[in-house]
Amino acid sequence: MTKDVTLLDLVRDDLVRVESKMRFIGGSDTYAPLAEAFLALLGSGGKRLRPALALAAYGFFVQPASDKATAVAAAIETLHTATLVHDDLIDNALVRRGSTTLNAIWNKGATVLAGDYLFARAAGFAAETENVRVVQLFAETLRIIVEGELRQLFSSRQWRQPKDAYYPRIFAKTASLFASATRSGAILGGATSEQEQALYDYGHYFGMAFQIIDDILDYAGEEARLGKPVGGDLRQGIMTLPFFYYLHAQPDPASVIARLEGGAEGVGEVIAAVRASEAIGQALAEARAFAVQAKTALASLPDSPFREALRELTDSTLERRV
Amino acid sequence: MTKDVTLLDLVRDDLVRVESKMRFIGGSDTYAPLAEAFLALLGSGGKRLRPALALAAYGFFVQPASDKATAVAAAIETLHTATLVHDDLIDNALVRRGSTTLNAIWNKGATVLAGDYLFARAAGFAAETENVRVVQLFAETLRIIVEGELRQLFSSRQWRQPKDAYYPRIFAKTASLFASATRSGAILGGATSEQEQALYDYGHYFGMAFQIIDDILDYAGEEARLGKPVGGDLRQGIMTLPFFYYLHAQPDPASVIARLEGGAEGVGEVIAAVRASEAIGQALAEARAFAVQAKTALASLPDSPFREALRELTDSTLERRV
Repeated sequence: MTKDVTLLDLVRDDLVRVESKMRFIGGSDTYAPLAEAFLALLGSGGKRLRPALALAAYGFFVQPASDKATAVAAAIETLHTATLVHDDLIDNALVRRGSTTLNAIWNKGATVLAGDYLFARAAGFAAETENVRVVQLFAETLRIIVEGELRQLFSSRQWRQPKDAYYPRIFAKTASLFASATRSGAILGGATSEQEQALYDYGHYFGMAFQIIDDILDYAGEEARLGKPVGGDLRQGIMTLPFFYYLHAQPDPASVIARLEGGAEGVGEVIAAVRASEAIGQALAEARAFAVQAKTALASLPDSPFREALRELTDSTLERRV
Repeated sequence: MTKDVTLLDLVRDDLVRVESKMRFIGGSDTYAPLAEAFLALLGSGGKRLRPALALAAYGFFVQPASDKATAVAAAIETLHTATLVHDDLIDNALVRRGSTTLNAIWNKGATVLAGDYLFARAAGFAAETENVRVVQLFAETLRIIVEGELRQLFSSRQWRQPKDAYYPRIFAKTASLFASATRSGAILGGATSEQEQALYDYGHYFGMAFQIIDDILDYAGEEARLGKPVGGDLRQGIMTLPFFYYLHAQPDPASVIARLEGGAEGVGEVIAAVRASEAIGQALAEARAFAVQAKTALASLPDSPFREALRELTDSTLERRV
């Protein structure tokens, strides 16, 4: 069997243009320390998965990517980066993607403003599409993401919250932006409303699968590959799918909660127990189910290398270091 | 002489609609603690000057305000509120407009996100105009404001910065949003490009005058009316026009800087000296000159109650508690 063509192969040239668009800091009126920090942030890695999704959705209908398509891809990734910058501040995280965060170098005020600056850039890129629906989708997605973060913040350490609270939270955190990326690409590409819905659904379900895998890796991954300690979510008081499965399988959930409330040692024990439990496999089965829904959504779309690449992306995400 | 009709008289009914638009927190999916805090923020006062400017610019051409005009007015004020929320975080300010800030009640993370939420709402209102130029202007203005705040943060306590650095800073901080308000209203109202430029110029120059007066009041105002201590800007290391005039009139500026660097007592002495000096009058003369430019910009616009009201607003701003 020959190696599949990957999504990144298909959009590589377009992504180069997105990258240079994101990195272009206009003119002499930009404050130099900001420009430096901004470039460092953008350069700190990441797979540019979100802009690739927007470009793929567009690629179903038009190739190569137009300036408006690269603009929306840049808007999506810049928005994502902005939320990461503020997340780091909120979490007081000192390490992300294995490198030092802005928050650890700059002071609090500058970090807030750096995130705001990225929001402004992202809004500017979205406006460059000159498409009212894309701009509206962008604003709505930002609202969903921020509300989700607030919800997560307020529900932290609420150990008795229902498992059902998990799904809207990961939709807000991840799937909404994936779905917004694919829908924006579809809109700009001139998709029919059915095609637009199918690409939205793909982004949505793929995003759900992606975040569940991420949440599984937080328990089951290797620290060296994750670039951060195992069990970070639970240490922050964030309950994810593996934890819910574990908790609900316990004969005495209250004793688990008591251990979590008892301090770091108890939390460490619970993390190890989740990691060794069947909860990991149960969560993985849910990720697989979302992946199936994502691939089903693709079926109604035109046959295209992009369709194959999105299928392959979905499958390979499930195999991500688990 | 009869009392002039004020801007607020003319746009009162429109402003009621803007207010209820801003306060409408949609549906059951909004997180309740956020909704409460959000309404508290919006209710904490302010004169709604910025939306009134947008409505006035629109009112030159169409009356009453359309839904799109109230949307842009809501976008402007919500954006302004968002920047205040983040400013409070940056300044660690505990009192604004005489009431307790969000930052003093919520934790840091929630405050960052509350500001982000307001950015998202503001972007959504801007998108409701369905006008590409308005959306682009909105994004560009947000970028200018944030860059200005970063510049101010990095130039704090840089006592040897030139006076010329002051003007772009207050443009970014205040005049850019005033100008964006009047331009947006003009665009939505169907102004000619000359009329649009005239209303942009009015917002710009009026905003410069307004901020200079604000900066004068920070020295020359009465604490009881300001709702905050006199000289707050200098205490934060922010150099404004009265300070520049004072400093440059001193035979030995270096000794003034030495006093500022010596601690709170020295700063207090300098504040008192600025307050008692001719710098206040010199700064006021500059505010008056900007006000003249603002009123000159109005001259090319159609005769209208709004034109008179903007003239009156400009004059009364100069008399604001000085």
